[in-house]
This record gives sequence, structure tokens and C-alpha cells, in this order.
Amino acid sequence: MKQITLTTDFGTRDGYAGTMKGVIWMVAPDAAITDITHDISPQNILEGALTLKRTLQYFPAGCVHIAVVDPGVGTQRRPIAARLGDHFLVGPDNGLFWLHIQNGINAGQSFEAVHLNQSEYWLDPVSHSFHGRDIFAPVGAHLANGVPLHRLGSPIHDLVQLHFPAPQPTKTGWHGEIIHADTFGNLATNIARSHIPPHAHVSVHIAGQTISGISNAYGDRKPGEFAAIFDSDELLSLAVVNGSAARQLNAATGTPVEIIFELPQKGSA
Amino acid sequence: MKQITLTTDFGTRDGYAGTMKGVIWMVAPDAAITDITHDISPQNILEGALTLKRTLQYFPAGCVHIAVVDPGVGTQRRPIAARLGDHFLVGPDNGLFWLHIQNGINAGQSFEAVHLNQSEYWLDPVSHSFHGRDIFAPVGAHLANGVPLHRLGSPIHDLVQLHFPAPQPTKTGWHGEIIHADTFGNLATNIARSHIPPHAHVSVHIAGQTISGISNAYGDRKPGEFAAIFDSDELLSLAVVNGSAARQLNAATGTPVEIIFELPQKGSA
Amino acid sequence: MKQITLTTDFGTRDGYAGTMKGVIWMVAPDAAITDITHDISPQNILEGALTLKRTLQYFPAGCVHIAVVDPGVGTQRRPIAARLGDHFLVGPDNGLFWLHIQNGINAGQSFEAVHLNQSEYWLDPVSHSFHGRDIFAPVGAHLANGVPLHRLGSPIHDLVQLHFPAPQPTKTGWHGEIIHADTFGNLATNIARSHIPPHAHVSVHIAGQTISGISNAYGDRKPGEFAAIFDSDELLSLAVVNGSAARQLNAATGTPVEIIFELPQKGSA
Repeated sequence: MKQITLTTDFGTRDGYAGTMKGVIWMVAPDAAITDITHDISPQNILEGALTLKRTLQYFPAGCVHIAVVDPGVGTQRRPIAARLGDHFLVGPDNGLFWLHIQNGINAGQSFEAVHLNQSEYWLDPVSHSFHGRDIFAPVGAHLANGVPLHRLGSPIHDLVQLHFPAPQPTKTGWHGEIIHADTFGNLATNIARSHIPPHAHVSVHIAGQTISGISNAYGDRKPGEFAAIFDSDELLSLAVVNGSAARQLNAATGTPVEIIFELPQKGSA
Repeated sequence: MKQITLTTDFGTRDGYAGTMKGVIWMVAPDAAITDITHDISPQNILEGALTLKRTLQYFPAGCVHIAVVDPGVGTQRRPIAARLGDHFLVGPDNGLFWLHIQNGINAGQSFEAVHLNQSEYWLDPVSHSFHGRDIFAPVGAHLANGVPLHRLGSPIHDLVQLHFPAPQPTKTGWHGEIIHADTFGNLATNIARSHIPPHAHVSVHIAGQTISGISNAYGDRKPGEFAAIFDSDELLSLAVVNGSAARQLNAATGTPVEIIFELPQKGSA
Repeated sequence: MKQITLTTDFGTRDGYAGTMKGVIWMVAPDAAITDITHDISPQNILEGALTLKRTLQYFPAGCVHIAVVDPGVGTQRRPIAARLGDHFLVGPDNGLFWLHIQNGINAGQSFEAVHLNQSEYWLDPVSHSFHGRDIFAPVGAHLANGVPLHRLGSPIHDLVQLHFPAPQPTKTGWHGEIIHADTFGNLATNIARSHIPPHAHVSVHIAGQTISGISNAYGDRKPGEFAAIFDSDELLSLAVVNGSAARQLNAATGTPVEIIFELPQKGSA
């Protein structure tokens, strides 16, 4: 199976994403192409990186993942391709894949990357504004066809990294922030399940609101109530049951969050 | 052919729908996956049910249809799979498939459903907030692979039903309501072609506006004019030619509609 | 390979695009279907035509391209299918494919078109409001299956053409206009690279703003600055680096643009 995924900030209306699919089929007519999304906020590399980190780990071996959120297109920023464990990554060298790569390396996956500089695998000519079409789509399709990574470019070891905001410890817990507001208005924080002692009582303070305790599921509270749960990425996430926490708290990426926890007293069980 | 469709309220931006595709390919690498939509309004089960009713009947035998609009995820609501005639349904037991199932049963299709409770066909672990990824995607892929329905869960006969608002008869016609405003701003009512005598003269009263007569096609009236037609689902639908009836009438799901009809007088032909 | 693309103004939420996929799979179960877009602005034929012109040329031989932006559905406007070079086009006869066809003919591709009138290749019955489902999807699938064009309808030579606004020459350059604002807010003009002498100094005047010189890439100017470049379609395009020119200039399709150029003086090099 030749399987290729696409993740971009192109939207679909203008046909840019469609054009990439045509180029892929031109090089690899039997490739199955699937959209992850074309709705990353324009030029928002962190949002794209979080979506890739959340998603790519669930795809099978051999997949080629092309991602384009590329404010530096046409400048000196390098086009890259990489192998992480048993799958391939193709896109700009601007940190877009960084969170996914870190996760893979931490899990023991092998990694190698090349600076794409072999133009015989590209469209001719190459524009200054649409490397998704001219470089990344054909390179991804050649990888799916079995062209070895080392033929496509020169090895590099200095990928651009992405700054991911880490939570800061306080006397009583953590000072963190919102890193993502999803379609439902659920607010993911940068505080993971592993940051919180298993039996602690937790309260979350955000935008003048206090949420006491962590629920197992959104539905454990009543519609309209606030709930804090560990989401499907194992991050502490804030929601309004059947509503939008982002709208109700007027909160977004960057909004600060205070986590306070108390351990149960001895003998209190 | 292994063919799987996806219908959700996840949007695409966050990668939740993309993740489901990865899980499906992990279990059934040769499955063709197609998006019906990921743009159902968040947690709007009726909107999802209408989209499924409108769409699924046009897919060929053997298709597996996964749908997730799931405000009750993580609570006691059951995950289900079903066979209706020659195709399969997978999703939450909350009425989402109900209109489609009713149509199929009324058309004489056989039906059986199971409560999904065989976790060896799921991802491990299962989160409390993303059964689309953890239960429905892998179960759908196993069905596409040919795993029999009865292996995936226990038979059930008490599916959650969906309330669909029926029109009320009046002395002069019907009292109905808008049940759907589509992308074009066309307003579908809950009054079907079968509710109206073939040769009656019909007038439609909505939001202070009267539309007289039923047209064959939107284009039979001039741009900017109101038109009433039987839409592609055979429902009486109100439109502004080349415009948006929803915007112009400030109408939406739930807006009341009065249908008045007069039968032709004897000898008047 | 059977490859079919879809381009519509249906959005995805209502399931209309999904329904077309079902009908295609009913006729051609092994067809690979890919979405170009379903987000063309409702009934905006020019926007659809520009997207098709930008996109279809990158797809391989044999593809069938179905496009539906169809304000005249149900009226006398003809349903058509065509062969342009080595690929097929299916949709309404309203100019939607015109820019793409002109490009192909100018590049020496052969062209033939038929008025679709053989209803044995359609769904039965045919609605007055959804020919995408009832005519175009099944006809496209039959073409992918190898049914010859001439079996599907009668030859025609009088396709509806699309008016594309041409720039007007002035004493000092061109008077043009914006023909497209993309997802990023980049503004494409109707002035192509071929309109401008290679070594001329160019200034662009739009909405009270002057942009001096043409850059190679958006990233050659600083974030927040205006830039003029030749875009990936070789059209002069105006951008705000990492921002939205459409928003900042309050400009849209139809906004006038003045291009003034000076040729270098002799000996000035």
C-alpha cells in the first residue's frame, strides 16, 4: 500500500490542496491520499505541530506524511524529508514536525533527515510561493514509490526546533497556559497527567473561574457546567459540558492557568 | 472493495478525523476511506441524523458507515454497530442513525444491532473522550475486514430513538417547521411531497412572507425571488433564487411554517 | 487506475458531496475519489473556474473531473461532458470549465464536448435541484469505467463561455483588477508576468497604497510589509508578509489596480 497524508493551512477553496493531490497522482498513480486537515490557521506553526503530534502516531508503518505550514516559503528556509521509525515526513524545516519527532525519539524510534536539494525529484520550474506543489508533493510521492531518502537530499542534523511552553512549578502546583482550543471550544493546557500526583485533589483557576476536581468524562457533569478532564492526548483540558469553554471563559491559546493540588492527609482515607 | 465513510462533528483542524483514518488504515490497510462530512454542528444529533438519512442510501452494498456526534462520550451511552440490509453502521447509541434505520426498515431491509462490548477489537487503552478513535474506527475497520457483527458485541433491540418533529394537520393544510437550513440558505420543511394532494394550489406562509405556488426548479423564478420546491429529499423547501432564504427570512431550524392548500374546483380545468 | 475529482460549492455539512461519492462508488466501486474542494462560494462560477484552471492541469492523464457550481440547475442549461486532451470534464454548461478549456486548447490539446442526453447513464428519477447526484456523478463514473463520450450525449460546439476581465493598457502600464483573494488574503490581479517587460521597474497602486518593486518571494520583505510577487499561477499578486492584504487594504474581487512601469534608461546598468 502507498499511503500519503496531507496537512496544510491552505484551506480547500483555492484548489492549492487539490493541486498537490494531482501532482502526487502524477508521480504515484496508485497512492491512496488522505486529508488530515487543510484548516490549520494560516501560518500557525505551533497549531500545525500540535495537530501532527496528536495524529501521525496513529498511522501505520510506511505512510508518507506531507505537511505544509510555511511562512518562509521562497526564502532560505530548507525543504526537508525525514524518516522517523517506519514512516516518512516531508515539509519545510521550521519546527512543524518537531513535537512529533521528539515524541518518536523519546519512544526509541530511529531518525534521519535530509535537506532536499535534488531537483530532479521536483516539478520544473519551482515557484517561490508554492513548494507544496513544486517540491513536497512530488518528493512525498517518490518516497511512497520507494525512492530512498538519501537520494533526495543531503543528511542534516540541525533541524529547526519548536519552542513548546513548559509549565512552571509553584509552591502549590503548576503555573501553565492554554496551548490549544479545539472545534468544541475545549481548552487543552500544557499540563499533562504525569504532572499531577495520582491521588491529589486538584483545582484549576482560569480567567476568574475555579474548577474543582478532575472528572473522568465530560458527561460526568451536567450540561452547562465546567469540567476538567485528561483529554485524549493525556493533557489536562477544560470544557463546558455540551458548550464551549473557549467562548464562555473568553480564553484562547496563551491564556494562563493555575493548578493547585492538595495531597490527601494521612488517615483521611 | 473495502469502503468506509466518516461523518462527524469534529471539524478537521484538530486532526481528530485524521486520527480516525490512521486507526482504520492500521487495521484495514487496503480500505478506501471517504469523508461524508466533519462539519456537523457540534453535538447536533438531529443535523447529523438528517445528513446520514440523506446520504447513506446512495452508497453501495458492503460499505461501513462510521458516524460520531457524541455528546455522551465517556458516560453510560452504549457504543453500537449494526447491519441494515447490506451495509454496516458504527457509532454511539444516541439516535444518530435512527432516521436512516427507519427508512431502511420501512423499505423492507433487515436489521440487527449489537452493543459493542468486545474490547479486543478496540484500541487499548480506551479514553473517556474520544471513542471515535478508540472504539468506532477500529470496529468499523474490522467490519470492513469481514469480522462478523455478532463477534463485536451482544444483540440489542432497544436502540435510542430520535424525535423527529411531525407536521400537524390544520383545517386548511399543515402546520410544520423548518428542519434544516443548508449551505445555500435553502430551508427544508418537515412537509413531504406525500403530504400535499397532487393538483392542489399551495401557499406557504413563513416569517411574514407568503410564497404562492410550488415551482419545478429554483431557476423557474427570477433571481432574488422566493421559490418553494420539492427538494432532492422530496421535502417542501423554501429558497431565494441565487440568494439565501435563511438570511432573508431570518429563519432557521424550528421556524414555524403554515401550508395552505386549495383543491381545484370541479369544472375549473 | 480510475481517478475522479470533485469540485463543488456544496460545502460538506449537508452531505450533498458525500452523496455524490456514494453514487460514484455505486457505478465504479474501484474508483479513487478525491476532493478538490466543496468550498467554492455559493453559485460563484468565476471563483470555481479559477480554481479549476489553477488545479486540473496538475492531474494525470485519464482523470475524470466532476465540477458543480450550478445556479441554473433544473432550467434549460445543458448538462455536459467533455474530453480535453487526455482527461474528462463533467458538469453544467455555464462557463465553469471555460478558463481551463481555453488554456488546454491554447496549449494544443484536442477538445470535444457532448450535451448529456442519454438518461440510461443517469439515476432514475432525476430531481430538479441536484444534478450533481442524479446526472454528473453517475456520468463521471461511467466515463471512468471506460464508456465512450459519444455514447453519453450529442456533440455540441457552442459551449457557454465565461467572461474573464482583461487588463486595459494605459500610457504608463496597465489598469487591472483583483480577480481572487485566497485563504491567506493574498490578492491575485488579472495582470500576468507576460504583461510586464522583464527589466522594468514596477509600482503597484491599490486602495491608496503603493507597492514599489516586485519581490521574488513573500519572505523577501519583513513581516507586516506589503509585497508584490508573481504567484504560483504567474499572476501579479499582492500580499502582506505573514498577514492578510485583503483585510489590510479592504480589497476583494473587483478592486481596481494600477500598474506603472519604467524601463531602465540606456546606460543606467
